[in-house]
Amino acid sequence: MKGTLYGLGVGPGNSDLVPIGAVRKLAEVDVVFAASSPKNDFSHALNVVDEFLPDGVDVRYLDFPMTRDQAVLEAAWNENARMVLEVLDAGKDAAFITIGDSLLFSTWSYLMATVKEHDENAQLVSFSGVPAYHAAASCLNLPLVEGSETLLVFPGVKDLEHFVEMGNSVDTLVVMKAYKNFDQLLDAVSQMKGKHRVIAASNVGLKNEAIVEDAFTLRGTKMPYLTMLIVKSVK
Amino acid sequence: MKGTLYGLGVGPGNSDLVPIGAVRKLAEVDVVFAASSPKNDFSHALNVVDEFLPDGVDVRYLDFPMTRDQAVLEAAWNENARMVLEVLDAGKDAAFITIGDSLLFSTWSYLMATVKEHDENAQLVSFSGVPAYHAAASCLNLPLVEGSETLLVFPGVKDLEHFVEMGNSVDTLVVMKAYKNFDQLLDAVSQMKGKHRVIAASNVGLKNEAIVEDAFTLRGTKMPYLTMLIVKSVK
Repeated sequence: MKGTLYGLGVGPGNSDLVPIGAVRKLAEVDVVFAASSPKNDFSHALNVVDEFLPDGVDVRYLDFPMTRDQAVLEAAWNENARMVLEVLDAGKDAAFITIGDSLLFSTWSYLMATVKEHDENAQLVSFSGVPAYHAAASCLNLPLVEGSETLLVFPGVKDLEHFVEMGNSVDTLVVMKAYKNFDQLLDAVSQMKGKHRVIAASNVGLKNEAIVEDAFTLRGTKMPYLTMLIVKSVK
Repeated sequence: MKGTLYGLGVGPGNSDLVPIGAVRKLAEVDVVFAASSPKNDFSHALNVVDEFLPDGVDVRYLDFPMTRDQAVLEAAWNENARMVLEVLDAGKDAAFITIGDSLLFSTWSYLMATVKEHDENAQLVSFSGVPAYHAAASCLNLPLVEGSETLLVFPGVKDLEHFVEMGNSVDTLVVMKAYKNFDQLLDAVSQMKGKHRVIAASNVGLKNEAIVEDAFTLRGTKMPYLTMLIVKSVK
């Protein structure tokens, strides 16, 4: 019988937030796959679960290059699918670990798609994890949404054409990967109607976590890759 | 020294999704508080963590009445704060357990506010959990958002005035507590531009979990209290 690949969301960084099902699964599987790119956030996943990995566990690295070159991407993804299927075809179970939730802006969705392209019968199971913005809110005891409030999660990489308008129509706005155009995002937030709390959170759950309650004081700062903004309407 | 109250998000229902930090905390605290109302979702929290509670643990129930009568609500919340502070003032630590995440549409935010009103120095710590819509998506291996996509979380109890417009401006729309006006929500979704996958998920992570990939087939059905819609643009 072929093996199963589990996509485990391990939360943002603090090992306390790893779901117990993921902890159990890591103790059971034959192989643990992790992303190898030092430039992307997924390389943190292995540190997050370090204390839960059995001694001598078989860890293998998958390459997710940070490029827009489609040929390079496809070659890497195909190689990743091949490496995974080699394990599953041998009847072994494996886990792929990814920070945050496995289905929210995660490499797991690309890995699933590529593996399915190579073998539509491959057994893939997704396990949820805690997204980083929940952990950031918990550091401040800040309710993200209550009652009839609305929450919008917006990736910083998206163009800002409708950003102010969308921000005006919700109660809480989370901007993920806000590192690239941080100042531009702050400018846009300051154009939104009403009063807001604007919080910047970087490296949530990691040793160098930084949560700044007035993000505007950081204008002009080069922000870390794992930076988000939480913009909350003040009533 | 006074004790600390931990607000633990225990995920939607499947004990696999309880963060390991919450499991550890439940083994350490002197008292576990849970909501008592059989009508609201929070009464599930105790079932979710049942296997992690030490034998003979001191469980106490807090009443969160489902009413709009402000006097009734305030009396209940004040009594809850009193019960919590009695424990903390005696130097004991306690946990309040709540399904999903502790800061997303959760009773924990009201409990925090009331306890702080009674004692502004009360030690309160929030622990994040996995929201139900992540778990629903994982059952289907459905990426909630990828790349530059946007996610809107909308409570079904909100008026639908801008609902179609907001749905049109995002890639993925989650409607929590969609039980009350389920058919009306489906009507509104069918007015949105473009093609969508419309999934109904009820009692996610619980024994009577039901995930229906075409929510429109449920039109006219009386849906359970814990029902959500996931509406995803198809490109």
